[in-house]
Amino acid sequence: MPVMGVSLESYASSLAASARRAGRVLALTSGRQRRESLVRMAESLRRNTDRLLAENATDLDAARESGLSPAMVDRLRLDPDRVAKMAAAVDEVAEQPDPVGQVIEGWVRPNGLRIERLRVPIGVVAIIYEARPNVTSDAASLCLRSGNACILRGGKESFHSNMAIGAAIAEALTEAGIVPEAVQVVSTTDRQLVPLLLRQEGNIDVVIPRGGESLIRAVVEQSRIPVIKHYAGNCHVYVEPSCPQEMAEAVIINAKTQRPGVCNAAESILFHRDVGDSRIRAICEKLIEAGVEVRGCGQVCQLSPAVKQATDLDWAAEYLDLIVSVKVVGSLAEAVEHINRYGSHHTDAILTSDIRSADAFVAGVDSGNVMVNCSTRFSDGGEYGLGAEIGISTDKLHARGPMGAADLTTYKWVVRGDGHVRG
Amino acid sequence: MPVMGVSLESYASSLAASARRAGRVLALTSGRQRRESLVRMAESLRRNTDRLLAENATDLDAARESGLSPAMVDRLRLDPDRVAKMAAAVDEVAEQPDPVGQVIEGWVRPNGLRIERLRVPIGVVAIIYEARPNVTSDAASLCLRSGNACILRGGKESFHSNMAIGAAIAEALTEAGIVPEAVQVVSTTDRQLVPLLLRQEGNIDVVIPRGGESLIRAVVEQSRIPVIKHYAGNCHVYVEPSCPQEMAEAVIINAKTQRPGVCNAAESILFHRDVGDSRIRAICEKLIEAGVEVRGCGQVCQLSPAVKQATDLDWAAEYLDLIVSVKVVGSLAEAVEHINRYGSHHTDAILTSDIRSADAFVAGVDSGNVMVNCSTRFSDGGEYGLGAEIGISTDKLHARGPMGAADLTTYKWVVRGDGHVRG
Repeated sequence: MPVMGVSLESYASSLAASARRAGRVLALTSGRQRRESLVRMAESLRRNTDRLLAENATDLDAARESGLSPAMVDRLRLDPDRVAKMAAAVDEVAEQPDPVGQVIEGWVRPNGLRIERLRVPIGVVAIIYEARPNVTSDAASLCLRSGNACILRGGKESFHSNMAIGAAIAEALTEAGIVPEAVQVVSTTDRQLVPLLLRQEGNIDVVIPRGGESLIRAVVEQSRIPVIKHYAGNCHVYVEPSCPQEMAEAVIINAKTQRPGVCNAAESILFHRDVGDSRIRAICEKLIEAGVEVRGCGQVCQLSPAVKQATDLDWAAEYLDLIVSVKVVGSLAEAVEHINRYGSHHTDAILTSDIRSADAFVAGVDSGNVMVNCSTRFSDGGEYGLGAEIGISTDKLHARGPMGAADLTTYKWVVRGDGHVRG
Repeated sequence: MPVMGVSLESYASSLAASARRAGRVLALTSGRQRRESLVRMAESLRRNTDRLLAENATDLDAARESGLSPAMVDRLRLDPDRVAKMAAAVDEVAEQPDPVGQVIEGWVRPNGLRIERLRVPIGVVAIIYEARPNVTSDAASLCLRSGNACILRGGKESFHSNMAIGAAIAEALTEAGIVPEAVQVVSTTDRQLVPLLLRQEGNIDVVIPRGGESLIRAVVEQSRIPVIKHYAGNCHVYVEPSCPQEMAEAVIINAKTQRPGVCNAAESILFHRDVGDSRIRAICEKLIEAGVEVRGCGQVCQLSPAVKQATDLDWAAEYLDLIVSVKVVGSLAEAVEHINRYGSHHTDAILTSDIRSADAFVAGVDSGNVMVNCSTRFSDGGEYGLGAEIGISTDKLHARGPMGAADLTTYKWVVRGDGHVRG
């Protein structure tokens, strides 16, 4: 599908080239100007509420017709309250501290050269995401806060909503004296555009895919541009005998049931064998009472007829649902090994009163977020105090765990001399 | 070419799986133990000097037979002094501060949750590099210092040297009580292994290619693993009229001629037009006297019959030789635009007395290293005080510019509560 008579190839390269030019302009703006653009963006979203809702209605009609699941339709849906919340989120990002220009570290060399590591925008960020219109304004605001131009490609079901949000953002940018190409919403639903974008390595600096695993894998496979992956979470809670029973119950129920459909919900509970059958049985019963389906190892199955036998697939599963796998392990080392083998390196928790166990778990578990005596549900940029997040990186390079505005920056080395030459 | 009867596929996956296991063990070692392994590595290199020289002689014979260029043969060659220097470099890395375990930042949330960003090893690093045996011990030592297992694949011309260095390192690791799989030198020269390694995304966390542009492009194209690129440098020196003539001459001659074959040597000089013909001519004459071939824009060509006309290819060229391109520009903005268009985002310098020009250049040039009033040759981990470097990243993500041991780490978020649940 060509866009306004242009081939997809030309469209992809012109999107990337415009973004690069806009990024170079953004790099020279002041923090005050970037903040101003965010305040105006929030106002513009509020002012354009009717238009956003009308375009969203078009998307909703098509989504219902095509049989999109009720959960996905709900994520797609805007109403006046949700638009107000999108605008409020942009206002919050406007009030966040500006990461750009921070001198991360600096020193003077024996020869008098002054060395500085200076935080600067990355340049151009492309975000590929699911059909959730609020991500469009969230992502745009975090990119602007950090001085980056962005290219936003949301799920095709949200196309009309996203175009309307993009238009509202463009109005705000123009008012703030910033080139509107600083935020570009992709104006085609053609899936063939994505692989073409992923080859614009000269003009796009990083790609952040969010959403299903198959989408992310396809992006990694095709991209010449560095990718920061946001895979889903198979989060564990490992319980030691030294953890009080009430704490274990409260944290496990919270981690599993408080919001089962999100990536930091627990999917698997590991009990040290010394926790003992009666305590394990009590927690399984609490889970079942809370509407959770429990799939257990052999030992857990013997505790209750309501527990089903877990398979190897269960240990690796991210249910995103009221289902949990439960396993008894012989030692902390076995728990760590199980988590590193079957987990997704997202968020894993230990519940213990023992300092050595906590330290060994923190050191041994190869995950972006390791919780000691609290729910996995705290793995979140807002809960950490980072402000809004672009997502939770399951990668190890550049950014790991919740990614805030500062994680959308890089640095340059600035070296100042007075005619210094190397001998 | 199968390795000891195993298919290349199995060899690639077993290399990666062994490295992962070794990385998990390394993550639990103490800094003292890692330091000890480095001290023993230096000793082992010294102790095995004769063996290293004998194996290197085999490589040198083959290299001369196959007509390798004298410059490449020189890079490949070991002698007692060079082995001593390799060992001394490892000793220096042993004395560097340990980056692992640093609490990068931390705070307490209003609800009492304690949040820490803790520096940890990345895990498994694969390094693909040119036929320079010293890189084998340099890379191994930096990876060990930072707690990473590594897979080292040097140029095939250095195969026997690298295997001997790998054996010396394995001896040292065993003495220090660290699994020898922490450092694995690839034991085949089959080029088909590299694409297979690049698909081990479950067990290799980052790939660092060094060397020719075509090699790096091929790695980026094929890799499912994040890549930190070390492209070569097309470095610029931009001269303003306010820079004293003696400083301009000294810095330009140093940047171009002190070591023309390395990536931080200057390849292109830009003069603001107000520097004036006579000053520009004097500098071109100094360059020519120093044996440099000057290729200029139209205006520069008119200054001396010895200056050849530069083409568009010259502006983009990394000569790595005694050749320089010289261009007159109308403004700082034009210089910045030229550098961002033709440069390689490696290292660029401004020579000026004007604060505003220096600030505008630092802000506008999109390069990993920006020098003010000093030679581009200072763009180097040692000169910055970082200690040994794995190379100079021309990427923007994770690490930019000289990469020391700390750049071979990532972090994990550690969150400590006392039974906290999310409301």
